[in-house]
Amino acid sequence: MAKVIECIPNVSEGRRADVIESIAAAVRAVPGVRLLDHSSDSSHNRSVFTFAGDAAAVSAAVLAIYERAIPAIDLRTHKGEHPRLGAVDVVPFVPIEGVTMAECVALAKQVASDVASRFAVPVYLYEDAAPDPARRNLEDIRRGEFEGLAAKMASPGWAPDFGPSAPHPSAGASVIGARMPLIAYNINLNTNRLDVAKKIAAAIRHSSGGFRYVKAAGFELKDRGIVQVSMNLTNFEKTPIFRVFETVKREAKRHGVTILESEIVGLIPAAALTAAAEYYLQIGGFNPDAQILENRLRAKDNAD
Amino acid sequence: MAKVIECIPNVSEGRRADVIESIAAAVRAVPGVRLLDHSSDSSHNRSVFTFAGDAAAVSAAVLAIYERAIPAIDLRTHKGEHPRLGAVDVVPFVPIEGVTMAECVALAKQVASDVASRFAVPVYLYEDAAPDPARRNLEDIRRGEFEGLAAKMASPGWAPDFGPSAPHPSAGASVIGARMPLIAYNINLNTNRLDVAKKIAAAIRHSSGGFRYVKAAGFELKDRGIVQVSMNLTNFEKTPIFRVFETVKREAKRHGVTILESEIVGLIPAAALTAAAEYYLQIGGFNPDAQILENRLRAKDNAD
Repeated sequence: MAKVIECIPNVSEGRRADVIESIAAAVRAVPGVRLLDHSSDSSHNRSVFTFAGDAAAVSAAVLAIYERAIPAIDLRTHKGEHPRLGAVDVVPFVPIEGVTMAECVALAKQVASDVASRFAVPVYLYEDAAPDPARRNLEDIRRGEFEGLAAKMASPGWAPDFGPSAPHPSAGASVIGARMPLIAYNINLNTNRLDVAKKIAAAIRHSSGGFRYVKAAGFELKDRGIVQVSMNLTNFEKTPIFRVFETVKREAKRHGVTILESEIVGLIPAAALTAAAEYYLQIGGFNPDAQILENRLRAKDNAD
Repeated sequence: MAKVIECIPNVSEGRRADVIESIAAAVRAVPGVRLLDHSSDSSHNRSVFTFAGDAAAVSAAVLAIYERAIPAIDLRTHKGEHPRLGAVDVVPFVPIEGVTMAECVALAKQVASDVASRFAVPVYLYEDAAPDPARRNLEDIRRGEFEGLAAKMASPGWAPDFGPSAPHPSAGASVIGARMPLIAYNINLNTNRLDVAKKIAAAIRHSSGGFRYVKAAGFELKDRGIVQVSMNLTNFEKTPIFRVFETVKREAKRHGVTILESEIVGLIPAAALTAAAEYYLQIGGFNPDAQILENRLRAKDNAD
């Protein structure tokens, strides 16, 4: 099986098309890298690039992004609604195929070290790459943003994992790490009662007593006259999508509400969907690697 | 996306290990072909080889099988429980990835023509490759078996599609065609009442009024004290697995019986499982090609 790592850098530029295109072109130019998607939000003033390849290829692509972003982006004049610490703000590595989380953690540390030494940018490691459990969470690392960064870095417990002990003057700091694939998943309800969506979100999200790997909030979709439970599923192996769906369905029922539909925003790993099929079809003794035709076709050794 | 065709030749030899291994070795030796599986049944005296590759590769592998099988297998002395017409009895081509059914039909006709001219074996085309709807069905073509073949070929409507108008003396005839992937799917019931399994099988199978692409029978699993509805799903796009499962569940309920578990026997295309996930999770507006990560990684053009 080919080794495939996904990488999704978030860069603090969502308005200047020439800068964004120059970064996309730099990624495309790296042999062995496939740029799967990139999207920019001008109110956030932020762009997200999604690409995949083996460790050497994605690592080269990340360094190519820094080469373009550092001279082009100055956080001292950057404005946008989305919180950010640096020009290249966040760089997660995600194991997709034939790769362990441990390999992605090792890669994150290597890239963090390269970024610190080549660009003099301080780097915090996050999620599975964080050496300190208190610094796993991206929101905690980013609190205070670029404007509060110099003071934060000087305070106890906030020395970076790599690089200088003060911010890069224009590029701030970066957060680099390894995590499971994230699934952006919404469930729309047959009601316009926002309180129902908010109560269900509170019931299922980790922060208020729900599932360990669910972040959730309730929103109104005003133009459609309905409400939505909007979620990030941060580990679909440990908190599977079908368990979240069934729990939302049960919680909705106590309010006399049904599920209108759900939606996957962006990409989802095939394994998250096949696990749902196994659950609902009550399939016993199933071996996805051996029995899903496409997996067999791609297995490296011919297990004949 | 790579072009992948699956081919599953059924050969009338399930006992002599040297003959079976010589055929497997011939398949493995074809560049671009991956032998996914082969299994032999000695009471059937029959072996099934499953391999995949592009059109040129699988076509070369089929001809290699004939080269080994024709001198080694003599239908005049062959005995076995499974019905058969020829030494290489049935050769289906199945579209898996980046290939249409029309391309598999064209391939089946080309291979049929090659087999007829190189080995002087008459060939019937079946399923989607059959020019005559009355000859789509394998069971109809094979009725009478090798022993009745000379008489059948001489009777009206049974001239072969390619090759001589009489059987090959030792190798009989072959049935070559194109079909959708077949899913072997069983549902085990929480009861030992065989009549319930038989009634459910009758309710869902095409031949007695059920779904168009379901073949089904009820069996007793004596050692476990339960019964089973055993199925072949011959077109999972038109008769999806979740609809069959839900119908079996409802039919079981009227007998006061529940589903214990279901099982996939052998291989299943990923799309059959992801369609079930879409159904049960009520996912709206989903585009598997664009949104399933593995499909995006394998898309030929970078739709960025």
